[in-house]
Amino acid sequence: MKILYEDQLVDRDHVKIDLEDRGYQFGDGVYEVIRVYNGQFFTLREHLERFERSANELKMELSYSVEKLESLLKDLVLKNDVEDGGIYLQLTRGISPRQHNFPVGTKTMLTAYPLPSRRPEKEQLHGVKVKLVEDVRWLRCDIKSLNLLGNVMAKQEAKENGAFEALLHRNGTITEGSSTNFYLVKDGVIYTHPATNLILNGITRLKLMEIIKEGSFKLEEKSVTLEDLKNADEAFITSTTIEVVPVVEADNTMIGNGEPGPITRKLQSLFLGKIESEKSKVGTP
Amino acid sequence: MKILYEDQLVDRDHVKIDLEDRGYQFGDGVYEVIRVYNGQFFTLREHLERFERSANELKMELSYSVEKLESLLKDLVLKNDVEDGGIYLQLTRGISPRQHNFPVGTKTMLTAYPLPSRRPEKEQLHGVKVKLVEDVRWLRCDIKSLNLLGNVMAKQEAKENGAFEALLHRNGTITEGSSTNFYLVKDGVIYTHPATNLILNGITRLKLMEIIKEGSFKLEEKSVTLEDLKNADEAFITSTTIEVVPVVEADNTMIGNGEPGPITRKLQSLFLGKIESEKSKVGTP
Repeated sequence: MKILYEDQLVDRDHVKIDLEDRGYQFGDGVYEVIRVYNGQFFTLREHLERFERSANELKMELSYSVEKLESLLKDLVLKNDVEDGGIYLQLTRGISPRQHNFPVGTKTMLTAYPLPSRRPEKEQLHGVKVKLVEDVRWLRCDIKSLNLLGNVMAKQEAKENGAFEALLHRNGTITEGSSTNFYLVKDGVIYTHPATNLILNGITRLKLMEIIKEGSFKLEEKSVTLEDLKNADEAFITSTTIEVVPVVEADNTMIGNGEPGPITRKLQSLFLGKIESEKSKVGTP
Repeated sequence: MKILYEDQLVDRDHVKIDLEDRGYQFGDGVYEVIRVYNGQFFTLREHLERFERSANELKMELSYSVEKLESLLKDLVLKNDVEDGGIYLQLTRGISPRQHNFPVGTKTMLTAYPLPSRRPEKEQLHGVKVKLVEDVRWLRCDIKSLNLLGNVMAKQEAKENGAFEALLHRNGTITEGSSTNFYLVKDGVIYTHPATNLILNGITRLKLMEIIKEGSFKLEEKSVTLEDLKNADEAFITSTTIEVVPVVEADNTMIGNGEPGPITRKLQSLFLGKIESEKSKVGTP
């Protein structure tokens, strides 16, 4: 496997991360996971713009422009023959003797490599269970940073309870999943948490909101409570990796009639259409 | 420099951290910084017991017993001729293909190496300024984890404002410094935040509380507000690295008369005595 290490493609075995990389000692960095379908990136530009925003919020600058990154990542996909999968991209504040405050004159460290990624077809078809977990993460969840312990511990709790995802709630208000955005449908209206500091504004969320606005759906960017969840007609989660997955059960309580709902089904289908149309665009000269 | 890499001493240049170490991708690990005076560890056992607690709270197990770690670290100090300084010790959940939930059958990764550390004598003598910063960290600050971005950003804000430390507050309540514990003195009573999920229970804090209880001081483990700070007689911060440092100014507001106070001075002196007495204990056969 070839790894993007700064602007070079390097053999996996030759990549060496330093002990004093601030990513390793402080989680001082940001990342993206970008989907590749049929050898082509999906929403690459959107991911890279968010990558830059995350870095800037942490007062880091990208070592290469978004345009240069696009070209480096496309080459990475090509050289690794990625057909269907993803690319993991990470930037840290670089290598420096350990101190909390920023080092002076240190270069950031960029790495990227292919991640296997499969479409979770069974889950998309039948829907999944979620485990309700208290949201104990920091108050800058809008930054896609490497400080992921809150997410890790929640996802693990979900898995240990036979759930596909952890659904996080803070003071009774549902924020998002541990690695997904969350949506609830009630009386024909789709609700999702507004893009504040308490959630990560997913690229799939943004794409889906485009679809929702293009269609004849009603959307409210408004948070819902655990109580609302009990009375929901439908629920679903989205992410780059899972696309749109229905939620049919939360902590042993059925959502709606316990089956994926009609609005969820419609959005799944429209989202797949979006992916297909992007693919065909790429094919056009 | 020799690095402790698992249970081996390895040359700095030969240490290679893997790209998929969960410490690098999730901040999924814990750490300690332990002080060495005159070639001898100070409160080594206490640090290692907290290290084990932090790991266990994240459902990780130490790869070696506390006793074995003691012996490995003592050897590390010896081989690197550490006289006055510190040891940085870190444990991550190990190397595994990226996924949020815990990998199965993965070995944790232990590393440790010497950090330079100087007693901040000027600051101990004259006192320091702190910058008030909102505490946006996660709700498990009692775990000494590698998810340190909240601390990093706060410390940086302090430095940019000419302050020695950031003093964190959550909803008006002071929690602790970005890498220190905080104490306020009013009418002869020493106040410090109770050891809840909102602060890291410092080893220096614990040692100082022993001293306080041995002496004729009044201590209350009770949080104080920003309002209380304005009316404080004295304030100080503690950590492994800085020991006891008076706080004389917060956001351009003088604390007390703007000079280190008498209780702070007394505690500084008693804490130094504690260090000296530990040193002499080591010398006894």
